Amino acid sequence: MRIAESIPALKSARAGFTGSVGFVPTMGALHAGHLSLVAASKAENDHTIVSIFVNPAQFGPNEDLSAYPRDLPGDLALLRKAGVDLVFTPDEAMIYPTGFQTYVTVEQVSHGLEGARRPGHFRGVATVVTKLFNLVRPRIAYFGQKDAQQVAVIRRMTYDLDSPVEIAVCPTIREPDGLALSSRNAYLTPEQRQAASVLKHSLDAAAQAYDKGERDPDRLRAVVQTALEAEPLAAVDYVSLADARTLQELHQPTEAPALLSIVAQIGRPRLLDNCLLPPAFNTRQGLAVLGTPR
Amino acid sequence: MRIAESIPALKSARAGFTGSVGFVPTMGALHAGHLSLVAASKAENDHTIVSIFVNPAQFGPNEDLSAYPRDLPGDLALLRKAGVDLVFTPDEAMIYPTGFQTYVTVEQVSHGLEGARRPGHFRGVATVVTKLFNLVRPRIAYFGQKDAQQVAVIRRMTYDLDSPVEIAVCPTIREPDGLALSSRNAYLTPEQRQAASVLKHSLDAAAQAYDKGERDPDRLRAVVQTALEAEPLAAVDYVSLADARTLQELHQPTEAPALLSIVAQIGRPRLLDNCLLPPAFNTRQGLAVLGTPR
Repeated sequence: MRIAESIPALKSARAGFTGSVGFVPTMGALHAGHLSLVAASKAENDHTIVSIFVNPAQFGPNEDLSAYPRDLPGDLALLRKAGVDLVFTPDEAMIYPTGFQTYVTVEQVSHGLEGARRPGHFRGVATVVTKLFNLVRPRIAYFGQKDAQQVAVIRRMTYDLDSPVEIAVCPTIREPDGLALSSRNAYLTPEQRQAASVLKHSLDAAAQAYDKGERDPDRLRAVVQTALEAEPLAAVDYVSLADARTLQELHQPTEAPALLSIVAQIGRPRLLDNCLLPPAFNTRQGLAVLGTPR
Repeated sequence: MRIAESIPALKSARAGFTGSVGFVPTMGALHAGHLSLVAASKAENDHTIVSIFVNPAQFGPNEDLSAYPRDLPGDLALLRKAGVDLVFTPDEAMIYPTGFQTYVTVEQVSHGLEGARRPGHFRGVATVVTKLFNLVRPRIAYFGQKDAQQVAVIRRMTYDLDSPVEIAVCPTIREPDGLALSSRNAYLTPEQRQAASVLKHSLDAAAQAYDKGERDPDRLRAVVQTALEAEPLAAVDYVSLADARTLQELHQPTEAPALLSIVAQIGRPRLLDNCLLPPAFNTRQGLAVLGTPR
């Protein structure tokens, strides 16, 4: 496994890859969710490149940039074992040199949900992903379902800008009790960790109601809200049921694929989870609907 | 010469080009300025692609989008004679499909000069150029010095976003009396056309003062202003002397390359012209300084 710590080193190593390239952009603190993306890339491409870069442009002034978990030696050991060909580990001054002033903005699909609570977050995501795509030139880039709005933003961006990169989305990987893997789970105390399984259980309650025929958006959101509120350690931030392509909040019953997404604060971290409805869409194939223009 | 009227047709034709590709993006109404870009591309690349697209995203609500001169048959005849390999002539719905919502914004270098007078103009330019670069995948793209701020914006954008495209700038092509070629010159009456040579003469006056040792930005701007005001048909919009890399207006004498740019309204059109100081920089090599990060 090669490690490129600079842009020239990345370009030089990339130039040696003649086959198809799969790419997994990460912020490090890797877990089995990231490794599922690596496995998909390895299965579908001749070469796999992973980037590790904690992107300051996607953190707000009051967010946890400096405290974001970092473990480069541990990450590299995991990626080596997973058979990655090349890891790109730039520092901030290489990605945002002095005088940097160009940003990629995706509008409507960035406005709600996390975008409404984290101004500038998706501008930072879209900008760094554009840069990484230009440098890595992958055929396919892999993202996790867990950050569903991020997927929708990047899908829309690549479509609008005619980027040649295909966006692949892999289903969320979970702990045995259902908690979605996240680098931020490390912030939880044991008691909070136990309480955190309520997120997945609340999504499951809505999926069950959906399977029994419930289509009313207000009632589906209420099922989730009620389940979340049963956990005293969970402070609900939002429960959203939105069109899976546009992320516009739903107010009328529909058979079209919808994204049910929730955020609850448990102790220090804001925990995110989501699922698609109909539940059968929570697969690599079904997730292709997220952010895809009609 | 092939003509691609759609994105799939462009991609198909582009896939057949195995050598280096030079690209000249235009809004049509072609003149000898555009053809000088084509000639440079032909000399330096295996294949030359030209796009013709009047980009609505770079016109303001009160600007001349619908009246912008169009002559596709004439343009195609010129390009065929010039030996262009492929012309891309998309329509608006292909470039901006329903739901389009992604924009590329370059900040500081877009803020002054034309950017201050045409809000959103350079966002429209940066966005369409990003799309065209993704579709055409050129090695080098060619732009004219006449739109100097556009060059600076696109240079900064490609640098910031790690685009693999090299930006080449060719010197302004002029009529015998010095008037810079522009599609908008067609709007001039014969009397206005005669008056319009004052723009180049005013730049020449500043270049002469520079060559005699004048470095004070206020005095250089005053030389230009005085020369422009001698022409009663010319209404001066602005006279700017700015750092050629950052386009920040100069207030102290400097030996560093500077962009002297002027806009005057003569009759209906706003006429633009510019030159670099020192005057020796007004060459293909010297123009490489425009918008280039230090």
